[in-house]
Amino acid sequence: MAGNTFGTLFTVTTSGESHGPGLTAIIDGCPPGIELTTADLQAELDRRKPGQSRYTTARREADEVEILSGVFEGKTTGTPIALLIRNTDQRSRDYSNIKDLYRPGHADYTYDQKYGVRDYRGGGRASARETAMRVAAGAIARKYLAKQGIRIQAGMTQMGTIIAEQYDFAAAQNNAFFFTDSSKLDQLDASIRELLKAGDSVGARIRVVASGVPAGLGEPVFDRLDADIAKALMSINAVKAVSMGDGFDVAAQRGSTHRDAMTPTGFSSNHAGGVLGGISSGQELIADLALKPTSSITIPGNTINRAGEAQQVSTKGRHDPCVGIRAVPIAEAMVALVLMDHLLRQRAQNAEVQPIGYQIP
Amino acid sequence: MAGNTFGTLFTVTTSGESHGPGLTAIIDGCPPGIELTTADLQAELDRRKPGQSRYTTARREADEVEILSGVFEGKTTGTPIALLIRNTDQRSRDYSNIKDLYRPGHADYTYDQKYGVRDYRGGGRASARETAMRVAAGAIARKYLAKQGIRIQAGMTQMGTIIAEQYDFAAAQNNAFFFTDSSKLDQLDASIRELLKAGDSVGARIRVVASGVPAGLGEPVFDRLDADIAKALMSINAVKAVSMGDGFDVAAQRGSTHRDAMTPTGFSSNHAGGVLGGISSGQELIADLALKPTSSITIPGNTINRAGEAQQVSTKGRHDPCVGIRAVPIAEAMVALVLMDHLLRQRAQNAEVQPIGYQIP
Amino acid sequence: MAGNTFGTLFTVTTSGESHGPGLTAIIDGCPPGIELTTADLQAELDRRKPGQSRYTTARREADEVEILSGVFEGKTTGTPIALLIRNTDQRSRDYSNIKDLYRPGHADYTYDQKYGVRDYRGGGRASARETAMRVAAGAIARKYLAKQGIRIQAGMTQMGTIIAEQYDFAAAQNNAFFFTDSSKLDQLDASIRELLKAGDSVGARIRVVASGVPAGLGEPVFDRLDADIAKALMSINAVKAVSMGDGFDVAAQRGSTHRDAMTPTGFSSNHAGGVLGGISSGQELIADLALKPTSSITIPGNTINRAGEAQQVSTKGRHDPCVGIRAVPIAEAMVALVLMDHLLRQRAQNAEVQPIGYQIP
Amino acid sequence: MAGNTFGTLFTVTTSGESHGPGLTAIIDGCPPGIELTTADLQAELDRRKPGQSRYTTARREADEVEILSGVFEGKTTGTPIALLIRNTDQRSRDYSNIKDLYRPGHADYTYDQKYGVRDYRGGGRASARETAMRVAAGAIARKYLAKQGIRIQAGMTQMGTIIAEQYDFAAAQNNAFFFTDSSKLDQLDASIRELLKAGDSVGARIRVVASGVPAGLGEPVFDRLDADIAKALMSINAVKAVSMGDGFDVAAQRGSTHRDAMTPTGFSSNHAGGVLGGISSGQELIADLALKPTSSITIPGNTINRAGEAQQVSTKGRHDPCVGIRAVPIAEAMVALVLMDHLLRQRAQNAEVQPIGYQIP
Repeated sequence: MAGNTFGTLFTVTTSGESHGPGLTAIIDGCPPGIELTTADLQAELDRRKPGQSRYTTARREADEVEILSGVFEGKTTGTPIALLIRNTDQRSRDYSNIKDLYRPGHADYTYDQKYGVRDYRGGGRASARETAMRVAAGAIARKYLAKQGIRIQAGMTQMGTIIAEQYDFAAAQNNAFFFTDSSKLDQLDASIRELLKAGDSVGARIRVVASGVPAGLGEPVFDRLDADIAKALMSINAVKAVSMGDGFDVAAQRGSTHRDAMTPTGFSSNHAGGVLGGISSGQELIADLALKPTSSITIPGNTINRAGEAQQVSTKGRHDPCVGIRAVPIAEAMVALVLMDHLLRQRAQNAEVQPIGYQIP
Repeated sequence: MAGNTFGTLFTVTTSGESHGPGLTAIIDGCPPGIELTTADLQAELDRRKPGQSRYTTARREADEVEILSGVFEGKTTGTPIALLIRNTDQRSRDYSNIKDLYRPGHADYTYDQKYGVRDYRGGGRASARETAMRVAAGAIARKYLAKQGIRIQAGMTQMGTIIAEQYDFAAAQNNAFFFTDSSKLDQLDASIRELLKAGDSVGARIRVVASGVPAGLGEPVFDRLDADIAKALMSINAVKAVSMGDGFDVAAQRGSTHRDAMTPTGFSSNHAGGVLGGISSGQELIADLALKPTSSITIPGNTINRAGEAQQVSTKGRHDPCVGIRAVPIAEAMVALVLMDHLLRQRAQNAEVQPIGYQIP
Repeated sequence: MAGNTFGTLFTVTTSGESHGPGLTAIIDGCPPGIELTTADLQAELDRRKPGQSRYTTARREADEVEILSGVFEGKTTGTPIALLIRNTDQRSRDYSNIKDLYRPGHADYTYDQKYGVRDYRGGGRASARETAMRVAAGAIARKYLAKQGIRIQAGMTQMGTIIAEQYDFAAAQNNAFFFTDSSKLDQLDASIRELLKAGDSVGARIRVVASGVPAGLGEPVFDRLDADIAKALMSINAVKAVSMGDGFDVAAQRGSTHRDAMTPTGFSSNHAGGVLGGISSGQELIADLALKPTSSITIPGNTINRAGEAQQVSTKGRHDPCVGIRAVPIAEAMVALVLMDHLLRQRAQNAEVQPIGYQIP
Repeated sequence: MAGNTFGTLFTVTTSGESHGPGLTAIIDGCPPGIELTTADLQAELDRRKPGQSRYTTARREADEVEILSGVFEGKTTGTPIALLIRNTDQRSRDYSNIKDLYRPGHADYTYDQKYGVRDYRGGGRASARETAMRVAAGAIARKYLAKQGIRIQAGMTQMGTIIAEQYDFAAAQNNAFFFTDSSKLDQLDASIRELLKAGDSVGARIRVVASGVPAGLGEPVFDRLDADIAKALMSINAVKAVSMGDGFDVAAQRGSTHRDAMTPTGFSSNHAGGVLGGISSGQELIADLALKPTSSITIPGNTINRAGEAQQVSTKGRHDPCVGIRAVPIAEAMVALVLMDHLLRQRAQNAEVQPIGYQIP
């Protein structure tokens, strides 16, 4: 319980259901003096917003965010920042068909087992709609991190069987798939068309890269930087796998290959993905994640209802054929929240540390 | 900072360096009335203990655990349980050669960047020696979980390029590799011999399976069961990747394949790995993790010293050619700690919940 | 930092400044199935609301609360409950006179020393206006506690030199002072008139009593029930002292007097105030608190400005001559939050405890 | 549950029963580079140690502390510091007489109601013996705070009806009562003799003063500095009341008297006790606390046993006639822990704050 707060010093507490009155977040522990307007938040929210292209759900949400506290005369004051996004596109459709139905692959069944009750409209709290607030909170963190020279970028590197051969994160910002390999855009487009026709969906793989991260962030032995990143990314809807650096490939590697040699002019490689012993090394942080295909598809599937009886289900409404697309800004936001929190934690304990005097470039 | 406590209600706080006086843990929030003796802990500790076979480090540690509090007349009292393991095999060797050297792939450099100082003997706090206390604490959790019908088993499923074709967790308990495929034991033996000869090391992949987990555990949206498992496993030394169910393979799957159909007599498949929406579904929990090959190898490598000068390093001492072997009981312990914590969390908030009356078998 | 969350399992996170857009709270960890409407919250808010009598500030705030999430079809769902109260009476007065002035007895100076900046309008975050959200959150807790037979009442027992000789908490609900001794109402009225004339203010003492609290709540050695109550009450604006049972009088007592004898039919006395060893005994919980007189008075006082220069200050605006009056429902709310949290904590760890079979009546 | 950790960034987790194998503490989040030896801890422990004078319990405990981790070559390393004190004077007396008896004024009954079981030997976890670890942990904090110019002193200001007329904290260090008024020592001595003869005990009042505290510590609205001090002090065994500055006297004060005027050369008074709006003002922090008389007295009293039957009880063993005496170093330690934690918290969020450029002297 009380699982809706993320972070230790820079904390983000969120609330809100898919079809309730609105989404709320309180960000506590934000340093004072950061210039912040709704426009800063809106820019990030718009990247995640549904209905941006024909590749995502047709749900129309303005996702207009309001700052309710913690900002005065355009700057943060150090007091908690409350954010509000009203839900606008709550079609008054009839949900009675899924009220007592447990859609396979969804959280309907587990929410009922946990709480004995659920807001069944549009997935309620289990809907990815809540991630809007992660993106808004992440935007605040990113604004602060940017001033420290820390930059976070993500891109999709796989959608179904289409795998990126290039990791161009700048290019990823310029296509509707956030795909890092522009040469694959036609294939992606064709794939989505085929999926929409088939009434099916597909999974995805995303890479997040953070550059400019100073060495020294992370709090072993449990609150390691990579452990907190793993939690942050795995907490995103539909994510089933998380890795750092070479990830699962390390199982087949030898120590002589994996260990990244250090030289006065830099690391020779980055198999570790920027973390050693749970602490940032100053190299690029590299994290990968995989998202399952959404279970909201029109192809009928077998399931049960609340009474435990066999049923068939087919999701008619609006849905993303690949939820991985809109997850790109969410993944960036979650990594930003982790870095922000660890930056403050490192500063608290080790403010007086005598640095060794240099950092490997 | 203060990153050495794991859990919210069932908390484990650990301390101790590889070559300091000893390892300590305080387990707080343990339910009263559990029968507990040092023998219960020792049994699990012995599985992780170094020097058990020719496949692991030759360091000899009795790893004898003492219970200092929280147990009275053979039962837990609900007050904190303190555990102590004295370090015994601290060879008074000369560490001056690594005092100012940053071994590649190790945490030497990052600890110095973070704290400005480190206990360089045997890796200090960054040594996997601290995981002994995770195993001891996990043994308490497992004892309680067993009474609830929850059983946690793990096994190695890949070592280097040798990949298990069978997932026999019972068999895994009976070989020195904890390997789930007994038909590969000769290959594994040959591989370790070759590695020791070459002075190299190799990575590994481990699977953890928990059965008997009731539906309803996990606290969305951030403290999801899978998110906490991801953090728990990623916090183990050398782990670089974590996944649930089909893991990274979901990127290539379609929704019609991935979603596990539900029927009155059970789920038709388990692509999800036992978690839906961050909450346990009652299916088997399936988590995979990958460990990098240890960087402590005799093959010389390039690195720098504290002064930033280029150096060569070759680790002579005792080391595990595959740290993944001894990580099997550690992974089990970490999953046990997560389940224990979430069992108590679920009970706190939802004690009065009207269950839906059945659980899919 | 991140000091705006109260509680461990039943958590309340608040935000909002006196003259910002509004006040927000997110209550996380609330059990599902509680019937809850805005009317439940409004009833408690109205007790705290300014402008209710001539004894409190003339500021007019509707204090209309909106539930933004966590409630579905009239019942809590177990997901976070977000509350919003818009500030309506933000007179567009000119605050330039206090912008750079540090009012004595106020938090102006300390907020600037802490954050380097502050929202100076009406005290900003330091205003007691934030306590509206404590009352709203407390109303949710009280609703749940009432179902468990736990009832929390408070009353003012001293205002300035006027001291209650009766502790009639029912009567306290029926006068504008929440005073427990109705025979003093004329004196209180006369005192307030005199204070308003003199442009001064006065302190107060409040007693909170909780009945029906089961034995066993409290988590020694640090999170004792009385320790958490002490924190809860001391965190209310203007509170300078907190005590349990006989409070400071115990310093002069002897053990033979203080210890409350136990008999099969009940405790013989309640010097302890319902807590032994940090755990509730089943007796009435009795807590006292004292609030300082507000520093917002028209009598001029010496102070400094941001430049460190000597200044005179006189607070003209609307103010409560005795902030203790409106603190009565706030104190009740804070004790409710503590009890709610500890009820859930006790349930988590000790659900299976074999009770000793009876509770001293 | 899990109530045995104090602090947010500088955390202290303790364990141990009165007559178990020993007491343990893990201090996490300690800055690196602090010179620390067991002698630093022992000096403080010796002040609290039983058997120091004829005024305290005759129990003989060496209270020899061992540092098990976190210190290397005489300095803290930033990793968790584990401390161990073995219990030595565990007379193998027969406890069968109190095994099933609930001593009035003690936690016997409440522990059994909470946990269903208790270690009844010498009070188990509820014994003040656990406070030894608070003192040891506090000694680490005090060492660090001293380097920042922060000094914490306490003294007894009342024992029974004997009330100090002087507040000489230096003098308090030089008498066995830690009494701040040396002129009362003969009265105190006579009082203790009389109490021992009568087989009774007496309460006490203690004042803690911290000087050199910078302005800006405290995290409103819940984690105020004074709120955390209130919790810290109320968590000490036998404490029933806590106050800041003028404490309960503020109820009778007027705003024109209470508010401390500020001038360029300093505050004109310190009614507030060094805290405004939950944040330190730079003035001396002044906190008072009251401890009840111990219930362990030889005068027989009425109570019940586990079966709920009426019984008489008379505590024969060794006991302190005034537990307030030895609480003086404990109160200092708890205030040190709060200040240490808040110093780190302030540093985390507000490291870059532009100070207003001066602090009122």
